[in-house]
Amino acid sequence: MTHAFQATCAATGEFLPGEFAEATAAQIDFACGRAAEAAVQIRELTPDQLGEFLSAVATEIRSRREEIVSRCELETGYLNARVEGEFDRAMGQLDLFARLAVERPWDRVTSEAADPDRKPFPKPSMTRRFVPVGPVAVFGACNFPLAISVIGNDFVAAVATGNPVVVKSHPSHPGTCELLGNAVKEVVKRLKLPLGTFELLHGRTPETSVRVISHPAIAAVGFTGSPQGGRALAKAILDRENPIPIFAELGSTNPVFITPDAMAVRAKAIAEGFAGSLRFGNGHMCTKPGVVVIQERDADAFIAATRGIFAKQPNLPMLSGPVAEAFDRGIEQLRAAKEVDSLFVAEAIETEGPWHRGAHWFGMNAETAIRERWLHSETFGPVSILVRCRGEAEMLRVAEGFHGSLTTTLHAETSENEFTQCWRRIAERFGGRIILNGWPTGMEIGSATQHGGPFPASLDGRSTSVGHASLERFVRPLCFQNWPEDVMLAKRSGP
Amino acid sequence: MTHAFQATCAATGEFLPGEFAEATAAQIDFACGRAAEAAVQIRELTPDQLGEFLSAVATEIRSRREEIVSRCELETGYLNARVEGEFDRAMGQLDLFARLAVERPWDRVTSEAADPDRKPFPKPSMTRRFVPVGPVAVFGACNFPLAISVIGNDFVAAVATGNPVVVKSHPSHPGTCELLGNAVKEVVKRLKLPLGTFELLHGRTPETSVRVISHPAIAAVGFTGSPQGGRALAKAILDRENPIPIFAELGSTNPVFITPDAMAVRAKAIAEGFAGSLRFGNGHMCTKPGVVVIQERDADAFIAATRGIFAKQPNLPMLSGPVAEAFDRGIEQLRAAKEVDSLFVAEAIETEGPWHRGAHWFGMNAETAIRERWLHSETFGPVSILVRCRGEAEMLRVAEGFHGSLTTTLHAETSENEFTQCWRRIAERFGGRIILNGWPTGMEIGSATQHGGPFPASLDGRSTSVGHASLERFVRPLCFQNWPEDVMLAKRSGP
Repeated sequence: MTHAFQATCAATGEFLPGEFAEATAAQIDFACGRAAEAAVQIRELTPDQLGEFLSAVATEIRSRREEIVSRCELETGYLNARVEGEFDRAMGQLDLFARLAVERPWDRVTSEAADPDRKPFPKPSMTRRFVPVGPVAVFGACNFPLAISVIGNDFVAAVATGNPVVVKSHPSHPGTCELLGNAVKEVVKRLKLPLGTFELLHGRTPETSVRVISHPAIAAVGFTGSPQGGRALAKAILDRENPIPIFAELGSTNPVFITPDAMAVRAKAIAEGFAGSLRFGNGHMCTKPGVVVIQERDADAFIAATRGIFAKQPNLPMLSGPVAEAFDRGIEQLRAAKEVDSLFVAEAIETEGPWHRGAHWFGMNAETAIRERWLHSETFGPVSILVRCRGEAEMLRVAEGFHGSLTTTLHAETSENEFTQCWRRIAERFGGRIILNGWPTGMEIGSATQHGGPFPASLDGRSTSVGHASLERFVRPLCFQNWPEDVMLAKRSGP
Repeated sequence: MTHAFQATCAATGEFLPGEFAEATAAQIDFACGRAAEAAVQIRELTPDQLGEFLSAVATEIRSRREEIVSRCELETGYLNARVEGEFDRAMGQLDLFARLAVERPWDRVTSEAADPDRKPFPKPSMTRRFVPVGPVAVFGACNFPLAISVIGNDFVAAVATGNPVVVKSHPSHPGTCELLGNAVKEVVKRLKLPLGTFELLHGRTPETSVRVISHPAIAAVGFTGSPQGGRALAKAILDRENPIPIFAELGSTNPVFITPDAMAVRAKAIAEGFAGSLRFGNGHMCTKPGVVVIQERDADAFIAATRGIFAKQPNLPMLSGPVAEAFDRGIEQLRAAKEVDSLFVAEAIETEGPWHRGAHWFGMNAETAIRERWLHSETFGPVSILVRCRGEAEMLRVAEGFHGSLTTTLHAETSENEFTQCWRRIAERFGGRIILNGWPTGMEIGSATQHGGPFPASLDGRSTSVGHASLERFVRPLCFQNWPEDVMLAKRSGP
């Protein structure tokens, strides 16, 4: 029996056209089996052929822009500018990785020459280089249907390194996934690549996800989602006959620290930056500034300015019903806690959709922040916590208590360099990207990008899910011992 | 209550002097807590200081060579030459990593300059570089008490990258671990490093190991042992509040393929190489050639020559009682299977110790090898399987069936280059080190070393537990955004 489901319109809560069938065990088996066959051929493609594939996908998707953007707007409730921006970002990412497929920055070749006269044993020649891991299962994010999804960061990294991809679409935007997937399939056919180069499966039950990552053909997993979801998949992977690597980008609170001098010089600009960063994508960014740490005596001007901006910002749709419900639960917990005070709570407006929400802001002192777990659980959506400290030492103690985070930020003046150094040393223990006088949202995709950090930011903080180094996730090193170079590097002669 | 245990003499099965106390929860908590404090200071040491520490450890241990080698011989039953060889290997590894601590090959710095004029948003500067992960828990191997243990591969890699180490000693050679640990502690004191730089805990229950890797202060794990043990620790890690990376080098069958031309030209030399590699360390090497794949019609001369050598080799002690028992169980299974024939079974000699064993060799055809799981489970000790194929195509099918392996080897002549290419493509899917006309034992420690492969060779085949690249396990990348270089790189001014 096949279960079908529908997507919802985030702005109204109503069903959207289109039905999506939960992938059956047989369909998963077929897709993964076909990907395994494709893997054998794709790993023999030339770098140029891999680059051409990614370029052709970019061209095909650009030609379908209007349809994709419009469905994506409906399924996410994002403002048009947010979706158009993400579309451009996803296209830029495809173009970049088409180039990286040719440049192969991950193939760091190391060689040691033979030494037949070495005592007591002759030394053989050795060459270490990198090969594709095999079919990669991809689970995109609810909040980036274009740049972290079917054709997103995991797809471009897996394909550029010569691996087929099996995507499990996100149940909150299956229509967008389907449109993107159709474009990729069209390119696969046109370029006469093996059909298993790209597989798309729908599903919204955990069982379907576990079935995909448990298939013996799958060699690695790229996942973006909740810490609970990532942990559950990682556990399921350890029940495979042969466990495989999983790269999971999970939750993050992205604490921002503001020093007295920075506050004295530019409280209003900081308030503007904070409010804009918090509401970007209505707080659905994995880099949302979820915690701001300040010195108590500097709070007033900043709080007043921020409240003023919040009051003028409109309520906007959350991504889906479940995301709105999780947000409401998080808010309820904060409102009920007696150590926590409300700084701003956007009012619900009856004429708006059921999932519209505005800014929520809560305050607590440093002792509470250090003692309680508030600081370590991300609540998706437009909510942030302000931690008030009584001095620099307490601010650093709050910093020391943080678990892993994708980013952490400091606003400070050059007059405070000594404090900045102390803070940096602590930040280096828990942050992935460490920002000085900026905001965590609006990450660059480049050669120096690091989008990953200690748990709960990632399952393994040594990886990045975005940027050039994300390619390293889907290759593994080999050492060739005693091979003449021509025999080692010879390409397959026939198909 | 403290449980104490004793080590056994591998040659006689009798207890050796010395009692070792199972680490209590409080002791583990104390050691890990002290390591966490040390981590903050060690990460601020200069590269020269880290190199000096490793050099001083090498000097101190060299000065205690006789005592260490002699205890190690008793606890392992290894021949003196084997232990002396491993001692030199461990010292060479310490010297090499003392140099690498200064050279820092893992700190691959990538930078992108700012572009304040970029549209629509200014581009911030970004620098990606690597920092220590924090305290590393180390679980050494039963078979390498010097090179993969207290001062072994994980220790040198963790320290060279600026991390403290918490070692859980191996219960089959706790005395050797204690001697090595005392030498390291002596150096830590002499150099006035924080005491938590190095911690040694004893224990032989799984609960003790789980308690160590579950401690919140532990930031990464280096483990060498069985696939079951590695999987169990990995599962326990997923039950931590904050999961951490684990690097586990596990089981491997290291298949060796021999072509007709190679057999025709040098059957006797191959027999000598095989028998020597199999009995090196009495089959206790993770790179032991556990499976040999040949063409049936070429078998006779090779089998006869190998049997002749086996018959002249003495029985030698297994590492411990549990290892001998596991070996006997593995042999029993093979002898009981009806698709498997005995090619050589060394006789037990009554006057020898209870754990002395000699070569065991079993044959099967390709169909059995492909159908059954024999090929994928490593039995520690001097046993190997011969797979007879009816031709090249069947040989490649056998290759296609292999799970991950630390190494795989081909013996072939240049006349057979076409087959070699086909074989190499398959070998690249499951092997970590791919050897042409050589033997897997006797691995080089260098910049091109790869000692890791898909499961069951490793938990994550993208890592190596030996060689320069093993350093990459214990650092993680950071991106500094918008930092002036002097502020980003400033060292701590005081202690």
